[in-house]
Amino acid sequence: MIPDIVTVGSMAVDSITTPVGEAPNCLGGAAVHGSIAASMFARVGLVGVVGTDYPQEGWDLLNARNIDISGVQQVSGETFFWKGSYSGDMGEAKSEVTRLNVFADFQPELPQDYRRAKYVFLANIHPSLQLSVLEQVEAPKLMMCDTMNFWISGTKDELTKVLGRVTVAFMNDAEIRQYTGENNVVKAARAVLDLGPSAVVVKKGGNGAALYSRNGSSGLSFFSVPAYPMESLTDPTGAGDSFAGGFMGHLAKTDDISEANMRRAIVFGSVMASFNVQDFGVKRVARLTWPEVVERYRQFQGFTRFDDCDA
Amino acid sequence: MIPDIVTVGSMAVDSITTPVGEAPNCLGGAAVHGSIAASMFARVGLVGVVGTDYPQEGWDLLNARNIDISGVQQVSGETFFWKGSYSGDMGEAKSEVTRLNVFADFQPELPQDYRRAKYVFLANIHPSLQLSVLEQVEAPKLMMCDTMNFWISGTKDELTKVLGRVTVAFMNDAEIRQYTGENNVVKAARAVLDLGPSAVVVKKGGNGAALYSRNGSSGLSFFSVPAYPMESLTDPTGAGDSFAGGFMGHLAKTDDISEANMRRAIVFGSVMASFNVQDFGVKRVARLTWPEVVERYRQFQGFTRFDDCDA
Repeated sequence: MIPDIVTVGSMAVDSITTPVGEAPNCLGGAAVHGSIAASMFARVGLVGVVGTDYPQEGWDLLNARNIDISGVQQVSGETFFWKGSYSGDMGEAKSEVTRLNVFADFQPELPQDYRRAKYVFLANIHPSLQLSVLEQVEAPKLMMCDTMNFWISGTKDELTKVLGRVTVAFMNDAEIRQYTGENNVVKAARAVLDLGPSAVVVKKGGNGAALYSRNGSSGLSFFSVPAYPMESLTDPTGAGDSFAGGFMGHLAKTDDISEANMRRAIVFGSVMASFNVQDFGVKRVARLTWPEVVERYRQFQGFTRFDDCDA
Repeated sequence: MIPDIVTVGSMAVDSITTPVGEAPNCLGGAAVHGSIAASMFARVGLVGVVGTDYPQEGWDLLNARNIDISGVQQVSGETFFWKGSYSGDMGEAKSEVTRLNVFADFQPELPQDYRRAKYVFLANIHPSLQLSVLEQVEAPKLMMCDTMNFWISGTKDELTKVLGRVTVAFMNDAEIRQYTGENNVVKAARAVLDLGPSAVVVKKGGNGAALYSRNGSSGLSFFSVPAYPMESLTDPTGAGDSFAGGFMGHLAKTDDISEANMRRAIVFGSVMASFNVQDFGVKRVARLTWPEVVERYRQFQGFTRFDDCDA
């Protein structure tokens, strides 16, 4: 069966410490966070690599979410392991241990069925691996890439090639400034749009997210949504990936990539990110129900609505 | 005549350098920025102090905007002078020269007519001066205070008294964190609301602004609006004061302090701030027309609207 969405990226075991507590050996990895979030909306095919030690809990969860794992390679060795901690407002993770293990030699290979998927999410991996996935897909309607500071400084040329081929670029505000060398995020977004994508999603953590897209020959369309006003964050790990999963999930479910629908997708992404941070790893999103998603979507409407100026 | 709004605070001459250029001897000061913005909406009575050197251009502008200056004291000496510069994304000013001059001995005195004004904006001045103004007003409907890091660290007890008496507290995200010692802005806003105000407006610069207000016994109502997506900023000086002026102006004009109307006021504040930064000092707001304000308000609607989740 052709999945609605193909998600490519890391599958990991994370040991996380935050001011709320410690959680050893959580299910983690960008592609896992993204897939579990997207699976609330549509059928996901996952592409990643794990070792022989991958927890049964992980297989069970992917199965429970009806996620196609025919693209997951299991090879001898250990699964990607990350240990990190957060303090203060949890704005940034402090990496303590990063053992790439089997992920070091990851070469994404899409099963035949996956190649005809219309929606492709390239989570944060080496841009040349992202490019190899783009070579394998046959009829994509929307491709989105995430990245990180490491690739921007180390493999910028390859990343530029990826940006030249995707439909949606997904970056946080620090990354888009770093990549473009432009302090002003609006100018930075315009610079990325000039490389080819029809939309740029800028994640701003606690300050929400923005969508920049082309509008006519020189115009720029702008949409912004706040972050959910969260009084008690438990663990931000994977929030950006859950955001991406919700965004892709809604687009794939509705099969509509208009700007108006991307706005709704940004809100669904924000909803998924807001649940992600309410427990360690994927725990909260793993037990999430659709009515909870809809309820929070409507809360976002409440956070942003205002009357006309002469109402 | 009783003014709709009384604005109390600094009147200054500013010499400003930004990456865009230099502007010596601009009209400045929080109360001037705030009053000029508010005067687009309602009749303002200004309370401040200037020296004998106050530029004729300043008197002319206040007059052109129908701003009541019977509360402005002109005393012998020089007007408050500030010289500062911005670099990079202009997130923060670097103060180079601060000469308080006649402002050092400012004692706000409200003319008789002002004392019956319903809307009072206490711009950033010593909290004990803000308290003295609150003693002078007789029938206020809404009082709002601004502040800064200097008063939070140096005169916190007095500031707490002010917060206990105003209707709306107006702070940026760094200030509210500093004042409450709470990293999480939602918790910080709740802590300030617990002191008495019925609403807290949190300015976040390029990340927009949020309104937190009490909703029932333990509930919190949240509203957020992005900053105008500005590709070329000229000078951020006074943007927060123009925001406050637009916010107060709309509330006073409509004489409605409901949460729904405060949301519209936040948007008008954001509109005024966005114009403020497009030229040095008060220049852009000084030549602003009402149709331009309405047009930008409608742009903000465009930046934030999204369809229902099952539309």
